[in-house]
Formats: sequence, C-alpha cells, structure tokens
Amino acid sequence: MVSDPTPTLSALDPKIAALIDRMLAGDRLALARLITQVENRTAAVPAIMRAMHARAGHAYVVGITGPPGAGKSTVVDRLTAAVRAENATVGIVAVDPSSPFTGGAVLGDRIRMQAHALDTGVFIRSMATRGSLGGLSRATSEVIKLLGAFGFDWVLVETVGVGQTELDIMKLADTTVVVLVPESGDAIQTMKAGLMEAADVFVVNKADRPGAPALVAELRFNVHLHHASPASCTDVDWEIPVLTAEAQNNVGIAELLREIRRHRAALEAAGALAARRRARRRAEFEMLLVERFRAKVQRDFRSGDLGTAADEVAEGRVDPYSAVDRILGRPDLLALIGGD
Amino acid sequence: MVSDPTPTLSALDPKIAALIDRMLAGDRLALARLITQVENRTAAVPAIMRAMHARAGHAYVVGITGPPGAGKSTVVDRLTAAVRAENATVGIVAVDPSSPFTGGAVLGDRIRMQAHALDTGVFIRSMATRGSLGGLSRATSEVIKLLGAFGFDWVLVETVGVGQTELDIMKLADTTVVVLVPESGDAIQTMKAGLMEAADVFVVNKADRPGAPALVAELRFNVHLHHASPASCTDVDWEIPVLTAEAQNNVGIAELLREIRRHRAALEAAGALAARRRARRRAEFEMLLVERFRAKVQRDFRSGDLGTAADEVAEGRVDPYSAVDRILGRPDLLALIGGD
Repeated sequence: MVSDPTPTLSALDPKIAALIDRMLAGDRLALARLITQVENRTAAVPAIMRAMHARAGHAYVVGITGPPGAGKSTVVDRLTAAVRAENATVGIVAVDPSSPFTGGAVLGDRIRMQAHALDTGVFIRSMATRGSLGGLSRATSEVIKLLGAFGFDWVLVETVGVGQTELDIMKLADTTVVVLVPESGDAIQTMKAGLMEAADVFVVNKADRPGAPALVAELRFNVHLHHASPASCTDVDWEIPVLTAEAQNNVGIAELLREIRRHRAALEAAGALAARRRARRRAEFEMLLVERFRAKVQRDFRSGDLGTAADEVAEGRVDPYSAVDRILGRPDLLALIGGD
Repeated sequence: MVSDPTPTLSALDPKIAALIDRMLAGDRLALARLITQVENRTAAVPAIMRAMHARAGHAYVVGITGPPGAGKSTVVDRLTAAVRAENATVGIVAVDPSSPFTGGAVLGDRIRMQAHALDTGVFIRSMATRGSLGGLSRATSEVIKLLGAFGFDWVLVETVGVGQTELDIMKLADTTVVVLVPESGDAIQTMKAGLMEAADVFVVNKADRPGAPALVAELRFNVHLHHASPASCTDVDWEIPVLTAEAQNNVGIAELLREIRRHRAALEAAGALAARRRARRRAEFEMLLVERFRAKVQRDFRSGDLGTAADEVAEGRVDPYSAVDRILGRPDLLALIGGD
C-alpha cells in the first residue's frame, strides 16, 4: 500500500464494504468483525472509520475507572441493568491496558457480564493489548465510534488497568466516573495524580466497609477545594459529587445514573458537551496527522538527505536535538517528508 | 520561547551552564539538579542534552523489570553490592509509571536502598509521574544519559509498574533482566505479552517457594521454543538463561551478574551492542522529530489554512482521515507546519 500514491482513497475492499453495510443494518456479527479490524489495526481502518463518520457521535459515552479491585465491573453491570430497565441500549467496552502481567482480568469481566449475554440491547467487547501494546486508546476511540454508529444509546467504557493509557481513554468519555473503595489508599495521592481532573463523579463502592465515611469526607473536602480553584479545567460549573454505593447489592446505582444524567444536562446547558466533542475531534485529527508523519519519517529516513541525517545521529556524530533543529529549519527537507 | 525563531540555539542560561560544568566535574548535587530539570521537562533540556552528548553512552545499562512483588528492588540492591565489590560505580533509576493509584511504591524502594546511601560510588534516583504522566520513558532515557556522562560504569534501571511505558523503558537497556516469582501467574501469558521479546535473562526469585521448579521448567521450555524460532528479534545468537535466586538471602546474585556479563560479551562479539545503540539513537531522533512536529501542529492549527482544516474536523463536517490525507498530499501545507 505504501507505493500507492493515494492509498486511503483506493477502492474499498468489497468484503469490508459488505461488513459495513451489514453492520449499519444492525448485524451484530458484522459489528464484532469490524471491531476486530480496528483492534488489529488493519489497512481497512481508515475506510471503515470514514464510513462511520456520519453516523458516529450519537451515543452518550460514560467512562468508568479506578484502581484494581474497586468493583468497576460490578458497577458497569448494575448500571447497564438500570439503563436497560428504561429500554435504552448499551454498548460496553472493557479495556485492559496492563496486560503484560495481568492477562486474566478481562476474562473475569466477561464471565461477570454474562447476565446480559442474551440481551440484544447490550453488546460487550473486551479489549486487551493482544501482544501489540501501542495504539490501545486509539483503537478504543474507534470502537466507541463503531458502537455509536451501530445505534447504541449509551456506551460504557471500563478501564481495568492503571496508568497513562487509562487516563487517555477516559478523555474519550462525556462523563467520567471514578470508582474507589476504602482500601484504595491515600486519597490525597489520588488527587495529586490528576484523577481529580479526570473525574466528573466519584463513587465510593463497598461503602459498608470501615473507612468508607472517612474516604467520602476526604474526597468531598478535596472536591470542594478544587471546585473553588480557578485552575479547574472543566468548562462547566460542576462540583463533582461524591456518591456511596454497594454495587454488589445494587445499592446506590439509581443515584449514580441520576448524577450521570445531571452531569449530562449541565454539560448540555452550558454548551460544554458540544465543546468537549469538538475538542476531542480536533485532538483526534492532530493525533492522526502526527501518526502519519511518524510513519513517513520511519519510511523516508532510510535513504536520501533525511537518511543521511538519521545515520549521522545513529553513529553518534551529531546529537539528536541539533539534527532535529536542522531539519525543522529547512522547509525543503520537510516537504520531502510530506511527499508520497 | 515559542516566538523565538531559533529557540533551542539561543544562549545557554548561565545557571544551567554552571550546573553542567559542576556536574561534569563530579558534583553529585549538580547531577541531581540537572535530573530535576529533565524530569520537569524545562526549556533547558535540549541544551543540557546537547552538552551531555559527547560524554554519554559509556555506561552499561541493565534494565530490571517484572510484576509487582517480584522483589526487583532487592535484586537491584544485591546486584549493586556485587558490582561495588569490584569497585565499579553504579547509577540507579527506579521508575514507577503507574503512580495514579500506587503512589507509595517508590518511597519503599528508597528506604530499601539506604544500604548504599553513604556510598559515593552509588547514585539512586526515583522517578514517578509527578502529576504529568506523559514523557516518562523519554525522561528516563535522558536521565540514563546524564548518569553515563557523569561517569558511572553501570546504570541499573528498575521499573516498578507494569504496562506499555515499562516495556518502552526496557528498550533503553543493553541487557534486560525479567524477575518473576512463583506467584507471577500463568507464565504462558507472560510469553504472549511480548516480555519474551524484551527479556535477555530471566530470574525466578524467591526460588525456595513451592511452584518455583515448575515456573523454571515452563520458562525454559518457552525460551527453547522461542530460540528455535526464526522470528526471534534479537540480533545475536543468545538463548535466554533462566536463573533462580533468593535475592533476600543474596543467593543467585553472583550468577546473575555473570550472565549479564556473558550477555554483554555475546552482544559485543557479534557487533550487536553497537548496533542496538545505533538503533536506539535513531529511534530517539525520530521520536524527537515527531514530538517537535506535534508541537508545531498544536500551535499552527489555531489559525490560517491549517486552522480552517482543523475547524472543519472539529465541527464534524470532515472526517479526520480525509482531512489528514488532504494535508499530507499538499507539500505547501506541510511547509507551513515546518516554518517557525
């Protein structure tokens, strides 16, 4: 495909075109197969995503995150039941970025979610790293679009791991729910790590355990401090609610759904939902452009003037910072990168 | 700095220049302060790294990774003592990429490493995410160079977390040691997750526990399978040894050091050490170039032709894949991105 001057504008593989047609007509198997294409980063991804473009973005996206053992899967399971009770449909993506050492988590989620296995109003997909660890938040973003284009009213994104990838994935949500438990450790640490920036709703799960009231009090204190601060990065006047729940016993789930709805209404009233989605599309565009630039760099640095520059750095004759300055100061070299 | 036409070529801040001079003269406090500059991604980083260029790359870099609780810090501690017994000097970087929920791990390492606190032949630095989660493997790469330029014979890089960032960091090592324990879970999962590609030496720590012989046997079987496969990505004929250790009791450490040396000798004999370092410098160059491109994109997409393109995507009028195709097909637009 690399030598094709207009690779992504080339004729769509008829098999993929048929899958897209079937998927848009409501075929769940076709949906699953398109998700597999996206997960495996096949050459068909640009064509698939272009076809989804007009239909994507209708679902309301809720992210659920928190440390291992907080009961996120149970919260997702109960929240799904609550949404289904109102006849809305739900697509679920369970993402495990931390697979190298914790390969078993996703399977457990699948088993727990069997309650919804026969419900055609629910679609569940687990995503792990499958050997290649890069691009997971990218792929998750595209799976969310596929689920939206398929027509689900809600998309729930659960991240099982911890770390940068998880926080990146939470940026894809309209409302982010952070689930903690009394054992989550020093809540102050949580604040520092930027989760306060990510959270729209806190849930203290397993709230019957000792330590829950203290955690709730600490979270509320910090939420209040944060809310008063002008450094808040939210674009809507919203004080993060701190809820309690015992998801296992279905306690606190109706309240959680109510707060998610209240957050959505606040976003919409402020015009912030549209603004967030605009910012997300812009970020996605920039990421795609940078990715394509990276691919071009990796290809073009094997020969020619750019190859010579890369060789000098590789041999240690020039330091990389100086070499980059030299290239970015020469539009003619940049144009070389740009040309197909 | 953004409006400066040649920002990274501007005169070096005299304070930073003095720190660099003192650091290169052997001042540990100056070293620590330069590391802080790198960790905080200040504007002085390019100048600092340019100054290190000629002196970097002399240390032999060993990565130590594995799941939480495998005893990596103890292995690092004992390995340090073994290297010091031969009068070689050691710089240690302990990296915790998973801080959002596990903020406490690094402090524990610091306490454990107090045995070397008064030894001027050892320098220990913990790195965590400090709020900003991005760029950790980047910063680690630069700290390794600083330690090498300072003159340490060995640099040990311990990663405490799990995930993509950790595997990225392991690519910075000349020899990577993966520490497992009988409780590490299904070793087959480990194989699948690409750790087999990263490992140069396996250590089954806490080898007195039940399950250790089975884990050793399983690892050896998989190493053997992998070694026979032509898909091996190593550039030297090396069958990954599977060692046992009880680091707490200093058992197996001499053998580990011997295997690290044997790996180094095998790399050197094959010309592979130089090749690995060339590849690393090339990758670093590409990463820097892409990073700078990203910064330019984020700045230039606020106005002009590129701003209009980004606005169309943000409004949802054009899908991002089509917009990227359009820009990358126009060298004149790319040149706009290139210009300062």
